[in-house]
Amino acid sequence: MSRWFLEEKGFDLDRAISQGNKFLTGNGYMGIRGTLEEFEKKQLVAINLAGIYDRAGEGWREPLNAPNGLYTVLHVDGETYRLPEKSPIAHTLYLDYRKALFTRKTTWQTAKGKVTIETERFASLEEPHLLVMKYCILTEFCADIELVTGIDADVWDINGPHYAQIALSEEGSFIKAIGTTSENHEKVCVIEGCQTDFVKENKLGIGEKRILRNLAFTAEAGKRFEVTKWIGIYTSKDAKDFEEQAKVLVSQCMEQGYGASKDLHIQQWEERWRVSEVIIEGDDVAMEALNYSLYHLQAIAPRHTESLSIAARGLSGQTYKGAVFWDTEMFMLDFFLYTEPCIARTLLKYRLDTLEGAKSKAKSYGYEGAFYPWESQEGGYEACSDYNVIDVFTKRPMRTYFRDKQIHISSAVVYGIVRYLETTGDYSILEEGGIETVLECAKFYHSLLLKRVHKAFYELRDVIGPDEYHERVNNNGYTNRMAKYTFEQAVRMCDLLKQLPKSTRMRIEALYYIEKLREQFEEAAGRIYIPEPDEEGIIEQFDGYKKLEDVSVEQVRSRLLNEKEYWGGAYGVAAHTQVIKQADVVTWLTLFPKDFEEKILLKNWEYYEPRTEHGSSLSACMYALLACRCGMAEKAYPFFLKSASAEIDGEGKQWAGLIYIGGTHPAAAGGAYMTAINGFGGVYFEEGKIKVKPQLPPMWKKLRFKVWYKGMLYEVEETHQDYSVRTLSRSTR
Amino acid sequence: MSRWFLEEKGFDLDRAISQGNKFLTGNGYMGIRGTLEEFEKKQLVAINLAGIYDRAGEGWREPLNAPNGLYTVLHVDGETYRLPEKSPIAHTLYLDYRKALFTRKTTWQTAKGKVTIETERFASLEEPHLLVMKYCILTEFCADIELVTGIDADVWDINGPHYAQIALSEEGSFIKAIGTTSENHEKVCVIEGCQTDFVKENKLGIGEKRILRNLAFTAEAGKRFEVTKWIGIYTSKDAKDFEEQAKVLVSQCMEQGYGASKDLHIQQWEERWRVSEVIIEGDDVAMEALNYSLYHLQAIAPRHTESLSIAARGLSGQTYKGAVFWDTEMFMLDFFLYTEPCIARTLLKYRLDTLEGAKSKAKSYGYEGAFYPWESQEGGYEACSDYNVIDVFTKRPMRTYFRDKQIHISSAVVYGIVRYLETTGDYSILEEGGIETVLECAKFYHSLLLKRVHKAFYELRDVIGPDEYHERVNNNGYTNRMAKYTFEQAVRMCDLLKQLPKSTRMRIEALYYIEKLREQFEEAAGRIYIPEPDEEGIIEQFDGYKKLEDVSVEQVRSRLLNEKEYWGGAYGVAAHTQVIKQADVVTWLTLFPKDFEEKILLKNWEYYEPRTEHGSSLSACMYALLACRCGMAEKAYPFFLKSASAEIDGEGKQWAGLIYIGGTHPAAAGGAYMTAINGFGGVYFEEGKIKVKPQLPPMWKKLRFKVWYKGMLYEVEETHQDYSVRTLSRSTR
Repeated sequence: MSRWFLEEKGFDLDRAISQGNKFLTGNGYMGIRGTLEEFEKKQLVAINLAGIYDRAGEGWREPLNAPNGLYTVLHVDGETYRLPEKSPIAHTLYLDYRKALFTRKTTWQTAKGKVTIETERFASLEEPHLLVMKYCILTEFCADIELVTGIDADVWDINGPHYAQIALSEEGSFIKAIGTTSENHEKVCVIEGCQTDFVKENKLGIGEKRILRNLAFTAEAGKRFEVTKWIGIYTSKDAKDFEEQAKVLVSQCMEQGYGASKDLHIQQWEERWRVSEVIIEGDDVAMEALNYSLYHLQAIAPRHTESLSIAARGLSGQTYKGAVFWDTEMFMLDFFLYTEPCIARTLLKYRLDTLEGAKSKAKSYGYEGAFYPWESQEGGYEACSDYNVIDVFTKRPMRTYFRDKQIHISSAVVYGIVRYLETTGDYSILEEGGIETVLECAKFYHSLLLKRVHKAFYELRDVIGPDEYHERVNNNGYTNRMAKYTFEQAVRMCDLLKQLPKSTRMRIEALYYIEKLREQFEEAAGRIYIPEPDEEGIIEQFDGYKKLEDVSVEQVRSRLLNEKEYWGGAYGVAAHTQVIKQADVVTWLTLFPKDFEEKILLKNWEYYEPRTEHGSSLSACMYALLACRCGMAEKAYPFFLKSASAEIDGEGKQWAGLIYIGGTHPAAAGGAYMTAINGFGGVYFEEGKIKVKPQLPPMWKKLRFKVWYKGMLYEVEETHQDYSVRTLSRSTR
Repeated sequence: MSRWFLEEKGFDLDRAISQGNKFLTGNGYMGIRGTLEEFEKKQLVAINLAGIYDRAGEGWREPLNAPNGLYTVLHVDGETYRLPEKSPIAHTLYLDYRKALFTRKTTWQTAKGKVTIETERFASLEEPHLLVMKYCILTEFCADIELVTGIDADVWDINGPHYAQIALSEEGSFIKAIGTTSENHEKVCVIEGCQTDFVKENKLGIGEKRILRNLAFTAEAGKRFEVTKWIGIYTSKDAKDFEEQAKVLVSQCMEQGYGASKDLHIQQWEERWRVSEVIIEGDDVAMEALNYSLYHLQAIAPRHTESLSIAARGLSGQTYKGAVFWDTEMFMLDFFLYTEPCIARTLLKYRLDTLEGAKSKAKSYGYEGAFYPWESQEGGYEACSDYNVIDVFTKRPMRTYFRDKQIHISSAVVYGIVRYLETTGDYSILEEGGIETVLECAKFYHSLLLKRVHKAFYELRDVIGPDEYHERVNNNGYTNRMAKYTFEQAVRMCDLLKQLPKSTRMRIEALYYIEKLREQFEEAAGRIYIPEPDEEGIIEQFDGYKKLEDVSVEQVRSRLLNEKEYWGGAYGVAAHTQVIKQADVVTWLTLFPKDFEEKILLKNWEYYEPRTEHGSSLSACMYALLACRCGMAEKAYPFFLKSASAEIDGEGKQWAGLIYIGGTHPAAAGGAYMTAINGFGGVYFEEGKIKVKPQLPPMWKKLRFKVWYKGMLYEVEETHQDYSVRTLSRSTR
């Protein structure tokens, strides 16, 4: 039986950052770090907003954190009770991730007796703009309480401040903070309404960046005093009358009351769990870690729009500039395809809608077609800088090549689109830009193809593969294979065109000389160089990889002079060794296991695994999946658990050079899901049918989950002896 | 009138390293640093040998320094008089570079009066294995003298020690040191004979690494006491009976006497100067700097063999591993072609004889043809390491790409061969490997050609041009142009073949399918991409160069955190700016001025000059030469003088990262010569004739020099008004 909660007891400031991630709540519109109500920016408080960005001065463009409407500080008999300053005698954080409720309980000892606060909050899954908190105070003695609560607009930023102006005001019984961004003068509006019925005095204070109510009352011994805060958040990108909408939302919800809002919220979550919950009998640790991972994916899934993607660190802050990476298509997409396909569509629609950005990026490098941003923000803006890591020794920015050489990103978009088609059977996405996207990605790779004058095959040179520790390599196997795949899918699109509505066909044919493109792509798919296994069965990750120093991960680690130094780059400790950051050839083999016989898959797994640092949270799941493909469920299991536990363990890297890279790891969550369903569960699709070939880890007595496939919901139940696939319902979409 | 000497007065230990270079003597077989007789390895004493190398352990392979037979320490009345320990009252170093005589005079004040030593030494140009020194002592008082003199085998090494064993012995009246190298067990034999006629007592002491005579006598006030040391140096590579030969040489020379040896030496030098002296009336500074530069070239020219080249730092030590770079063909060759063509032949023969090394280097990278070593040692061994610079911040070796990406080296060899053919008219070099060398270099470039699938032209990617601060660039203009030149010359060789003796023709035709090669190379020459000037007339140094930060050399310099840090590499201060180390596009335009109209040459000179750090001594002369080509003798002049003064000023860089790179700069010397003769002198060859188009700097009243061209020696005399070209004699060769 799953416990469906996470609990941490005792206060330790050192854990505050990782707790911010672990206890995150969110609804796809916003993510609220699991920080305390009295925390401020130095404790990394964030109400992180999806899809809205700002660039302050010469800093990196990054997503906005909204003014913090949760901000609350308690004073008892004139003394301040807050963390970390005042040590508590008891302190508990609690997350019910079935219901997506965050709870905090803290007790301090005073001379007169104990003071306890209990809070509960949620980012409504029913109302994406709504954040609600109940704050309770309980004293063992009669006390003069002053609760200072309101909106703290002095938000945490990595490359901020982003609000050029902050307007703070009173609006009837509401208080309001409107920040205006420095770059595009967007507005972020936070309206707070406060419900309480025992207050003697309610004074308002407006500072430079804070607007605060001072609620004073006398607490009776042993009696709970509750304050409910209703926070509406809108931006000028959401609606023209965003202020009005925020006010209406808060007013209406306050009228319905806390219980009603909470019920609707829980109900929405329950609907998600109805489909997405994975039941693993015999292994509660795995089941809980997995469902907790899925909680994180659900909490950041965009449901308030039809075109938006998910940032690599979800909504846990501004790490990686809140940008969208290949993580979405390659690691998170399957979860949504299987459990809530319309979200998969929303994610892909973001790519279709940013095709122009990808085309202009390609053009800026003198390439053709669509070169998707390595770090994609609004409109396909490439947020990745040429200097993306800081050298720990010189403190200088290091020229990195993620932006210009990690060309496999475009193939990830194609992979996502094709996977969507094949899993949902919904071809409408092709009419909305899907065809152009695939063709433009193929054109991009085609314009990069190089042929040695005296050789027949085509090459892709000077790239970075998934393993970023090796820069500027030639013929990275994964990249070449994905380019081949892209050419093949582009050929398929040319053929598919005949089946699409005439209007689409005419539009596309007006844009492209389809026959010629088809021919080009078919030729390219046939001639692009794909490395073959050598005599030992090993596929070289790139030209010359096997000539590099063959040394263990631990030896490489022992060469570090500074724990924060970057392993990659031109001179990093791993750069000229066979030690790699993450699955690379193994990712290829996981995606295309039929390229080679199983013996080869296994040999490469065994060769590359000990050479992999797993310095990326994207790594473990690929090893887990390929291990399953090779019939090694037991070997897959620790990699699966590592993926599923990325947040619970909180062991992810916090630094790349001097750049903070902490936050949540939704791709690892997605990878854990894929391992459970496709790996252990053995789900695959053949001839339009869902099939399973289970191979459960020994401990697992039963695995049960639901999967959408081509408009039908199936329930799969597997044991070591048997399995069943049951049709549940047809999509109403 | 030229003074023909260099003199420095006063003793300053800080100047000892640069004096070692400035006062160098040599005869092509050995170079003797201008250090003092009592100096030891910590003062960088070296008797540097040409063409013999050793590798000790994991260090870099580098040339050998012979045991120092000059080693001598003076004791007067029981007290030691030596520098730097005992301060002198007068000290002079003097080099007569017309006669190649090094003189040193030092006076100390003692309680009883002054003690003076005067030494004179030379590396015989008549006898390459002979080094002779006269050592005189003069006291103002009657004194007990003890002169300790012998062989110091504890030599200076950068990556040593290279002698696994040192055998020290007495051999009749001679003393002997034989070092055995650690890698190949080669022997270096030094035999010393000592002449003196006043010695009371002559004791011999043999230590671990030194064999020393203790010459004791009583000096009379005001009387000169002379000791003459005869040093014979042979290695096991010179002859089987190297020991015997050394003994015979020393015996015979001693018999002839100091005066006779010295006269023959001076006579040999005088013969060289008869042809090579450049007379500049009106500018003694320039004349002296230039002839002093030519002295350095003469002192390191290989005359004792028919196949040997010159190291980039000559015979001034082990810097750059004593390896041969493109410096020889591109910067030094002209001097020898014009003044002593048989040396030019010796230099090129070294390349022909190391073709196999170049072929095996190409093969090791998966290329075809001949990839000449960036740092060439015996047999074409590539001495350049993949880690050629030490990071000043981490003290780690930095992965550098000189070895694998600086592909223009092979074209330099072709350039040298063709220049030899055209200047000497001696085609026999083609029969001795010249044809194969050119064809193999062309094959090398052909195997590197890349074609973008949708473009028609050919590219060379991922290279380093002459400007080493920008690594791994695409389509470096200089490199592509030189590759084109190589293809063209290979086509020419295919055609020339018909004119060569039948035996050569048959040999070559058995090796190559000439018709097919000719066709391939002709096509490649026509299709290789050569950048064109942009709208502003500027030729991009490589793809994307003009997009780099445009910032001054001084700004870049101001960003250094450590004066020794490397400007290039992946993250160096210059790497991502337009600041370049040395002439690159300008080198191209200097070699091929007819590629563009003069306006374009000028525009590029003006664009690149302020962006050039001139961090290489190869840079200034190219700017000087192109300035002359653009009719700007005045602008050329300071660059000429900088080249000519490379040693006198002693301002060259001493460090690349933490690697010592000090020593002499023969390429700068050669560059100064080219500027004087081809630039200001305006010498060129057309239709088999020598022609001149002088453009003297304003100060220069008259320029006079001699030039060999196709077996005839010409004397050219030029003034601002007039010029004459007079035929002097025909070569007997």
